[in-house]
Parts: sequence; structure tokens; C-alpha cells
Amino acid sequence: MVDLPQKSADLIEWYLAVVEAANLTDKRYGIKGMNIWTPYGFAARRNLDRIMVREIEATGSRAVEFPLLIPANEFAKEKEHIKGFDAQVFWVTKGGLTDLDIPLVLRPTSETAMYPVFATWVRSHRDLPLNVYQIVNVFRYETKTTRPFIRVREIHFFEEHTCQADEAAATDRVRSNLEAFRRMAEAFALPYLALRRPEWDKFPGAYYTVALDTPVGGAHTLQLGSVHHYRDNFSGPYGIRYETADGSSRLVHQTTFGLSERLLGAIVAVHGDAKGVVFPTAIAPYEVVIVPIPGTGTGEAPRSVAAEILTRLRAAGRRAHLDDGDERPGAKYYRWELQGAPLRLEVGRREAESRTAMAVDRLGQKGPVSLAALESEVAERLARFDRTLAERALASFRDAFAPARTLADLRGSTSVRTIAWCGREACGHEVESAIDGALLGTPEEIPPFLTGEPGPCVACGSTEGSRWAFAGQPL
Amino acid sequence: MVDLPQKSADLIEWYLAVVEAANLTDKRYGIKGMNIWTPYGFAARRNLDRIMVREIEATGSRAVEFPLLIPANEFAKEKEHIKGFDAQVFWVTKGGLTDLDIPLVLRPTSETAMYPVFATWVRSHRDLPLNVYQIVNVFRYETKTTRPFIRVREIHFFEEHTCQADEAAATDRVRSNLEAFRRMAEAFALPYLALRRPEWDKFPGAYYTVALDTPVGGAHTLQLGSVHHYRDNFSGPYGIRYETADGSSRLVHQTTFGLSERLLGAIVAVHGDAKGVVFPTAIAPYEVVIVPIPGTGTGEAPRSVAAEILTRLRAAGRRAHLDDGDERPGAKYYRWELQGAPLRLEVGRREAESRTAMAVDRLGQKGPVSLAALESEVAERLARFDRTLAERALASFRDAFAPARTLADLRGSTSVRTIAWCGREACGHEVESAIDGALLGTPEEIPPFLTGEPGPCVACGSTEGSRWAFAGQPL
Repeated sequence: MVDLPQKSADLIEWYLAVVEAANLTDKRYGIKGMNIWTPYGFAARRNLDRIMVREIEATGSRAVEFPLLIPANEFAKEKEHIKGFDAQVFWVTKGGLTDLDIPLVLRPTSETAMYPVFATWVRSHRDLPLNVYQIVNVFRYETKTTRPFIRVREIHFFEEHTCQADEAAATDRVRSNLEAFRRMAEAFALPYLALRRPEWDKFPGAYYTVALDTPVGGAHTLQLGSVHHYRDNFSGPYGIRYETADGSSRLVHQTTFGLSERLLGAIVAVHGDAKGVVFPTAIAPYEVVIVPIPGTGTGEAPRSVAAEILTRLRAAGRRAHLDDGDERPGAKYYRWELQGAPLRLEVGRREAESRTAMAVDRLGQKGPVSLAALESEVAERLARFDRTLAERALASFRDAFAPARTLADLRGSTSVRTIAWCGREACGHEVESAIDGALLGTPEEIPPFLTGEPGPCVACGSTEGSRWAFAGQPL
Repeated sequence: MVDLPQKSADLIEWYLAVVEAANLTDKRYGIKGMNIWTPYGFAARRNLDRIMVREIEATGSRAVEFPLLIPANEFAKEKEHIKGFDAQVFWVTKGGLTDLDIPLVLRPTSETAMYPVFATWVRSHRDLPLNVYQIVNVFRYETKTTRPFIRVREIHFFEEHTCQADEAAATDRVRSNLEAFRRMAEAFALPYLALRRPEWDKFPGAYYTVALDTPVGGAHTLQLGSVHHYRDNFSGPYGIRYETADGSSRLVHQTTFGLSERLLGAIVAVHGDAKGVVFPTAIAPYEVVIVPIPGTGTGEAPRSVAAEILTRLRAAGRRAHLDDGDERPGAKYYRWELQGAPLRLEVGRREAESRTAMAVDRLGQKGPVSLAALESEVAERLARFDRTLAERALASFRDAFAPARTLADLRGSTSVRTIAWCGREACGHEVESAIDGALLGTPEEIPPFLTGEPGPCVACGSTEGSRWAFAGQPL
């Protein structure tokens, strides 16, 4: 048994203990910030990926894969982009026993790998929109403290890159991405804010950045992903042009949409509790864990009923697991709660005789299911569990925010703060220094809990140009 | 339209032209041997991967993912292994703006990444067997000519690594892997030989290597994958030990199983013909392509019937595609034959009126399908197509071999040669120099077309220790 730190007392310590105790990751690899995806962690990641793929492909995006290595000269073409990345990339300088003529960068993101090729793929307006995505690992030479799933040096990454006919079409693609994320987040049961980042915090080379943030306790937030509008900032340097219907030549406008393994970190951080991980059904490596309880004198009945349940649930398409190891039942319950299995089915002598199983979900709801209606009763219990989990997450989300009217309010914040901001950079930096964190940005849509007018800027007191904004401490 | 070289005249030229014309790969990336997975090529690869995952997981193997980068000191621990690889790896020597203390290798294969960690995962006989696999990209600094899917520098790779209690259990795992490959190859419709490679050609560090080879025309063969028995060659240096039931400490015996994107190259090379690619249904990005033929005076009927077919086939779980572009039908037929779609459904005025579609499979079988029984008739036609394709491949396979009784027979070979070999290395090298290729090895199971006794060694004439062997020119 593992003693978990208290989540409310120290989120980070709790998180670090939980991801290892639940066997989602193994940090015993010889390079800082490069961890091992264990079978259990990998299974959760595969479920996450499946949902990303489903939702992005529903919008007409197609999977591709570009090479990992980027020649230094291509990497340097967009000035802001290279400025944002050159201190944090890994360099390949040697192949075999010889030095390379041109050093190669391990992609930190794939703009500079893809866009020289997009310039050959896009010729005519008939080639637009070009919507492609890839799920690959990217690399960043992090010098800060690394944390599994949240800040690592090898990052499991989803990146969509698109080319559109003009700025308005690119704006539409940003909206379509935000809508796709809304559907993904539903499967993850993660409430979030879509915030337009301030100018000084946008993606290097972007026209604007919309980040997807979720509060994770105290003033802490976690960025789940982001959507960027590039206008023609990249298509210019990379020469991605097309011929319009009337024969003129124009630069495409581009967008990107990025998500990462951080989503798994967020699921752990948001839903987890004193017992450990809580997985939404869609992400759980095992949706259902079956535990036979072969007491004295019960014979083989509990085991054979458990085996029947396993077979039937798998046939119904469920990720079901039979835990028939020789630990005692209590130890198994403890471990599957730690590992976040949504539903446990216990089969003892009494259950075997009455052809039932005792169902216990990860939030503690308990009751018998009948083998006669096993598949539908399990489906109902999982649906109920997911609803409860989503409601619980939404309630915490609503409680996560508190208004701040002055810079003094921001100091020592134990909530994410909603503020009014005049939009000026100088005031933004005052906010950041007061909260010892970041001005996260202005909401793309005003959430229902922000009512009335924003009022005077929290820093300068001006009401001119005043807008709602959020401030917090990104993990 | 593209003029393809003749396959029988120059396999390589034909292959290189086909993979690009069919848009399976894009070679216009700035680094030799690092190509782009286009949407079409990626879709085929995803189907390949799905079959590998299905078959290996059916044997109880679980997916993991280890980091890409391997510290130089771990990489160097097994002497034969490092000798085999150190001239062909990429080196990361710089992170951000600083030189790394310990250079990092881009994995060329993952023994040296995984085994230090396996030493912590395996403690007791209860932890065995440990069967895990990953599907990742690996990197080799090839100095030879590169060819899409067949010899590249960034390789899409499947690698299973296992730990077993003893040599016999590891031998069993080798057999189980060969059996899993047999099931995969059925889906790919690829006949092959399982050959135990000669000592001088085994995997660096292995006890023995069984390679999976397929003939691809003339004396050429393509290695589809390999299974290796390591004994305790790696577990020694990496300290992978376990406690037996009686409390003693033993080294594990290990196996690996490797496959790669080369399988896609083999599918192209083996099944392709004068018109282009021919995909088995299981691998085809689109199993069915629907082409409406809206002639003059037909109104919307062909289009609306085509749309209905699309909807119904997708609902039935088929990968179906509606080609409603404005090219003329002939151009579409040409392109989908080039791209290897197994079945095309044409819907013109007559078909729309009679609620049928004209089905044409990629091997030229043609006939109407009725919308009333669309799903089942399409399923039947695809099954028939797959059977015909498999039979055709098997017939070519049988024709690919010719016996050679003397070294003179081997010179200028236009077939893969079956020979008798005494087993001595000196004779093996004489065979290799005569055929200007490789002694591929001895069959794990004698194929039915090798009847009788092998006879005297093709090189020295001795019958002592004589065994069947194959010689050819690996691509």
C-alpha cells in the first residue's frame, strides 16, 4: 500500500505520487523528463488518442506523418518561430561516425517540417482547404523541473496543420477546432476555458492563440491544448501560394491545433481523489474489473461466474479485466481504486448462487447487477458514473474562480481570478507580477458565471476597453 | 497519367515509380531516406498496424512505449550489439545551446533502451513471462541507396521484447511469434519463408535469428521481419534476473520480434501489376470506391444512388469512398486502379434506374450488385477478390524458386535458388559470392516443394551435415 499525500494540501506532491503508484508511468529511465509508457499508461493514452482521431476526422482532417528531423536551414525560416524555439531543441550533429553537413533538429512542433512540402501540395484553390494532422512525439530541451505528462522532454503530441483560402476561412477553422475540442472534452469530462492569450504569450509566429485551460486546484491551471491562427505569417516565408479561380496568386492562411499527453495529466489532476486516479469510462484502460471471491466452501462457482462475465462483457465490446490473482480481495479493491477503474464487479458465493454480481463504481455507488441483464445494467452503471463524474468536475470548476478587483486581491491567490483588464500590456504585466503567474487571456465566449459588465481595469482603473480576463498560476 | 516502367523488366524502377504515382509516399523532404507519409500511405500503414496489434495482443503481449533517445553508456553495454550498430546511428550531442554531457543515440532498435528497465520490472518468477511490444519509429544512418518503405533512415517499426524463464520457454515464444506472423501474413496475402539465418548474418547479439523472406521477382527477396532468440546474451550485461520458486536467482532468456513498414513495400512489390498497386482488402485505405457517372439527361439519380451506397457501406463498417470529383469516369478508374482499391462500384443511368451498381474488382472481375443485397454482395466480391489475390501470389511464390546443384548454377541467377549446404561458413561465403547475394538460411519447416534429400553441398560436394538452404539477392 502506498501513502498518498493529501491532494488539497499539495497538489503537485499528490500528483507525482499518484501517477507512479497507479503505474501510469515509470520514471526510472536514464534521461530527465523522458519517461516510460507502461502497459497501463499506454492503454489510457491509446483511448485518448482514439477520441482525438475520431473527433478530428469527423471534421474532414486526414492523418499524415512527417519526418522527426528538420534541417537547420528550414527550421530558421520564420523569424519569430525560431526565436521562440532555438534555445529548447535537441540537435543531431552526427550520423554514424561522421559529422553532418547540416545539423538536424528533433521537431519541437512541425511547422518547419511540413510547410516547405505544403508549398508543393497546394497549387490551386481546388487543393484547399488542406486539413491534415499527425500524432507523433515531439522534443523540447526543458530546463525547468519536469513532471510526468505535464512537462516532459519527449511529448506525445497531436498537431493539426491547415491551409485555408483566406483569413476568414482560417477563422472558421479555428472555430471548428474549438468545437471538436468541446466534443473531446466531453469524453474526458473536463470543463475548461477557451482563452485568447495576450500578445506576449501567443505561440511564436502566430497571429493569435486560443488556449484551452482548466483549473486544477488553488490558483493553478493546466493548459490542455491550443488553437492558433497564423494568417500568412508562415505561408509567406515558406511560399505556400495558390491560384484563385480567377487566376491570381495568393498566400494561404493557416491554422494549427495542438494537444498532448498533458490531457492525461489533467484527467488525473482534475478527477483524482484521496484513493487515487479516477478515469472517465472512455479513457479507462479497463472499464470494468471483475474480482472473484473464492471463499472457503464456495468451490469454483465465483470463478466460473466471473469468467462468464468477462467473456460476455468482452463480447459486448467492453474493455473488461478479470483479476484472478492470489491477493486477497481487499488488496485488489484498493489497487483498482488507486488505478481508477470506473466499475468493479465482485462475485462471491452469494452472488454466484443468485447469478448476480456486486457492482461498485469508483465514486462509491454500489448495488447488485443481474447476470440476466448484465450488459445493459453495466452500461447503465457506467453511464451514471460518467454523469456523476462530469457533474462533480463541473461543480469544482465553478468553485475554482474568484473575482479580484484590485492588484492587492491578486496577491497570495488561492483561486483562479476573474478580472477586468483594459487590454494594455503594461497592466497585464502588473497582473502577472501580483499573482506571481500569468494573465491567461480573455474568454472566446463569456462563461455564464461572468455576469454584468467587467468594470474598471484591475491594474490602472480605466474602464476604456475593459474586458473580462483570467489570471492564475499555470503548472 | 503516368507511364509506369514494366515490372518484369525492372522491378526497382517499377516499384519506385508506383509508390509515388499511387501517392503512398512523398519523397520531397529535405533529408535523404526520410519520406512523408501522405494521407493515402498513412491510411494503409494504419491498417497494417491494426493487424499487427490484433495478432500480437491475441498472444498476450501488451503495448508500451520507451523513450526515443538512449544514453551512449547504456547503448554500449552489449558488445556484439554495439559493434553491429555504432556506425549506423544518429547522435544527439546538443540540447538547446549547450553540449550534452553524455551523447544520446536515436534508437536504431530498443534493446538498450528497455533492458536496463526490464531489470527493475522482473524480480520474481511471477513476473514472467514479460511480453511487451511497441510500434515506434527507429533511425538508422543508412549510407546505401534508400528506397521508400524498403530501406529508409526513419523506419516505422514494430518490436516485441520478451523475458522468459529459460531457454525452452524462449524457444516457445519464438514459435508463438512465427505463428502470429503466419496469421498476419494471411491478411496481407503474402507467402513467405521462415529461414534461420546463417551465423554470420544473425542479429547483433542474438543466439539465432529466424527471418521472414518473400521472393519479389528474379533472384530478389525482401526480408519482411525477423524473430530472434537471445538466450541470456543481453540479460547478462543488463542484469535481468529473477528469483525462482525455490529461491535461487537466474538470468531470463529473451526473444524479440521485429516488423516494419517494409511490409507495405512487400505488398506493393508482390501484388502490384502493370496498372499499379493492388491492395488486399484488409490493407486498402478504401475497400470500395464509388464512382457516379452523371451522363447527359440522367439528372441526379446516379449521384443520389452513389450517396446512398456510400452511407450504407460505411454504416456496415466498410472503408468506402465516393469519388464525386469532376474528372471524367475513365480518369477515375485509371487512378483507383493505380492506387489499388480492391473494388469499384460504378453507378450510371442504367444502374440507378435498376437500383444496381456495376462492380469491378482490381483483378478485373466484373458484374452487377443489387442495392437490395448491397452489403452482402460487396462482402462476397471482396472475399472472392482476396482469395484470387492470395492464389495468384501463391502461384508466383511457387514459381519463384529453382534448384541449383553447383556454384556455376548460381551465377547470373534469375530465380531464388534452393540448394544443399553442408552448414560450413566457408561454403556459405562461396554461395554468396556465386549468386552475388546472400545465403538466406535454412527453412524452419521444410516447404512442400522441397522433396527428397538435399543431396551434396553445392559448394564442397560433401553430404555430411547437408541441409536445404536458400540463396538469393536481398533488396
